[in-house]
Amino acid sequence: MADENVVFIGKKGTMAYVLAVVTQMNQGSSEVFLKARGKAISRAVDVAEIVRNKFVTDVKLGKIEISTEEITSNEGGTLKVSAIEISLKK
Amino acid sequence: MADENVVFIGKKGTMAYVLAVVTQMNQGSSEVFLKARGKAISRAVDVAEIVRNKFVTDVKLGKIEISTEEITSNEGGTLKVSAIEISLKK
Repeated sequence: MADENVVFIGKKGTMAYVLAVVTQMNQGSSEVFLKARGKAISRAVDVAEIVRNKFVTDVKLGKIEISTEEITSNEGGTLKVSAIEISLKK
Repeated sequence: MADENVVFIGKKGTMAYVLAVVTQMNQGSSEVFLKARGKAISRAVDVAEIVRNKFVTDVKLGKIEISTEEITSNEGGTLKVSAIEISLKK
């Protein structure tokens, strides 16, 4: 999986990520992975649904995986946070 | 899919739903479905990860599906909202 096919979903507005996915697909990517952690997981699902229902109607949902990641907090400890990876395929 | 095997994830604390899933499994359910909409989607992923990593370690992730649902707003119009369904299987 090349990093160029990954869109990391963060705190921007949903449409910013929709545009990023659509742009990658228009540039020839046949599969794009959406990755998100914590509260951004809901937004990743929104992005996937908006892309496939409104913008790239020939796109299909690929595999959806959930996992737990450890991140280092500002205080130096580790936190566990849920993560999701959604594949969109043309 | 019997409704009794479904846990709807809403605005309560994450552990309330973890307890609901663990209770259903201890009562003999071999498969439990977590359903959530909108911002509660992130919590549903947290619940699935906590159940399988900490409480019922022989549980496996089944199918994860995302979709768009229409709900009726208080003003009478309709809103589209993303939804997730996560299957946990023993």
